[in-house]
Amino acid sequence: MPSSAPMHRFERQELKESHGSLFADEVAIRFQDVDAAGSLFFARLFDYLHGAYEGLLESAGCPLPLVLAEKSWAAPLRHVEADYFGPLTFGDRVVVHIALAHVEETEITLGYRVVKEDESVAAVGQTVHTFIDVGNRTRRPVPPELTRLLTALAN
Amino acid sequence: MPSSAPMHRFERQELKESHGSLFADEVAIRFQDVDAAGSLFFARLFDYLHGAYEGLLESAGCPLPLVLAEKSWAAPLRHVEADYFGPLTFGDRVVVHIALAHVEETEITLGYRVVKEDESVAAVGQTVHTFIDVGNRTRRPVPPELTRLLTALAN
Amino acid sequence: MPSSAPMHRFERQELKESHGSLFADEVAIRFQDVDAAGSLFFARLFDYLHGAYEGLLESAGCPLPLVLAEKSWAAPLRHVEADYFGPLTFGDRVVVHIALAHVEETEITLGYRVVKEDESVAAVGQTVHTFIDVGNRTRRPVPPELTRLLTALAN
Amino acid sequence: MPSSAPMHRFERQELKESHGSLFADEVAIRFQDVDAAGSLFFARLFDYLHGAYEGLLESAGCPLPLVLAEKSWAAPLRHVEADYFGPLTFGDRVVVHIALAHVEETEITLGYRVVKEDESVAAVGQTVHTFIDVGNRTRRPVPPELTRLLTALAN
Repeated sequence: MPSSAPMHRFERQELKESHGSLFADEVAIRFQDVDAAGSLFFARLFDYLHGAYEGLLESAGCPLPLVLAEKSWAAPLRHVEADYFGPLTFGDRVVVHIALAHVEETEITLGYRVVKEDESVAAVGQTVHTFIDVGNRTRRPVPPELTRLLTALAN
Repeated sequence: MPSSAPMHRFERQELKESHGSLFADEVAIRFQDVDAAGSLFFARLFDYLHGAYEGLLESAGCPLPLVLAEKSWAAPLRHVEADYFGPLTFGDRVVVHIALAHVEETEITLGYRVVKEDESVAAVGQTVHTFIDVGNRTRRPVPPELTRLLTALAN
Repeated sequence: MPSSAPMHRFERQELKESHGSLFADEVAIRFQDVDAAGSLFFARLFDYLHGAYEGLLESAGCPLPLVLAEKSWAAPLRHVEADYFGPLTFGDRVVVHIALAHVEETEITLGYRVVKEDESVAAVGQTVHTFIDVGNRTRRPVPPELTRLLTALAN
Repeated sequence: MPSSAPMHRFERQELKESHGSLFADEVAIRFQDVDAAGSLFFARLFDYLHGAYEGLLESAGCPLPLVLAEKSWAAPLRHVEADYFGPLTFGDRVVVHIALAHVEETEITLGYRVVKEDESVAAVGQTVHTFIDVGNRTRRPVPPELTRLLTALAN
């Protein structure tokens, strides 16, 4: 994974103002995910984003537990980021939307929008997954069922 | 692992009043291990106990990363418990002592005492590990290097 | 909280063979809750048990976020324990049942039964909560709405 | 915190090729921070970065537990990101370097370089902290002791 290869990133504003939803996952901020400052520990947001990613894989017909068991392909993260627009606290209920997707031959970028009950956007994020063969850890094409789903949903 | 097999448990009072230390691990309560009520999330205490257990294994000459790589034996937990005598908060520094050990043929019980800087005991805990062959998941003797260390330290 | 005060504990066998369900919470073992040995990190089971406890509080009309905001009472854990009857892995779906409850004047013991899709019991656990006034941290009676619910459900 | 305000971001390549170290924190990848795919769960990298940030604050004379207790200022995260150059697994020992710092009037960007024992860079990251008064949650200047330390170290 040469770090110099080009990579698609969404703009924070583009994500914040997005309206689409390729997948939506309802989440309640957990009691134990709050930190000593009293709000969601920033890194736990990624746990919630990953939950939506797993839901997307399942709806594409390739649930992650099955993918891991088959040892055919893997999709390690190359890059992740998040922007926070205000604190989230225990008891807040949010919807994690996979708002945008960008599909390259061997890589996808997923953009997330985390929306509170009052419809305000609490955070946005993105994850860049590189697809590899488990055997030799070299790049391979994005699984067609995933490409198909993302392409269909994006239209 | 028939749940009816006998199992050694220490008494909470016995652990609280223990003085020995087969292994000691200094820990600072982490920012992100506090919960929405403002003190250490109770389950994270076990993360700290496990750190001491890993230190013990390393000092016995069988560090856990190596044990996992060799795929010879494993020591899944059969039983764990903890008693809390007061809240721990972010910034508290404690010492996790492995205070007591009970060694059976295929099982060990480790007792922990978690001590604050003012020497008060914040919590005690215990973990019962059953030793198995990784291949067929049947019980096997406790590795001799571990028995030797625990026996030597206990005297 | 004198550590010598009597405390109710259920027997592991009693929990394993229990059939009741005061509250049930469906949980999928999370990708990130697995450890380097490939199965659920033992301490994360308590995160799932706590989820069921939060659900119980909500169904009693005292959701934990509200309880924390009101700063009237708190229910710190005095004791917790768990017994594991076999490994749980990523993708396993379990139901966490609050199977048994024992109510004292200022303390409750909740017993949990964690059941897999094949109806086998993967683990049992229990948590002992002591009720205190937030102001002075002295013991106070179990909130009546919780006593009422637990008593009603237990019959 | 208007999301449109300018924000300093380091380039991933700039971080990867950096050599400086404003603060260094040795970390062993924890048993429980590995995921079901067998390597460090990507989001746990941020837990390690936060550890280095806390170390930096302490060396600047404003340890985070004290900062929280004083309720004077807070530094919520506005933006975080990470790039991964290869998997980290249980037992790996890394050094988390705070490699670069950019100081604005009310905001700092910290850049991190995570280096393995073979001197290869496993990951880089950055965190953008906005300084606010705890009372009214409006922006305030970066605490002078932190500015002083970062300026001194950067030269």
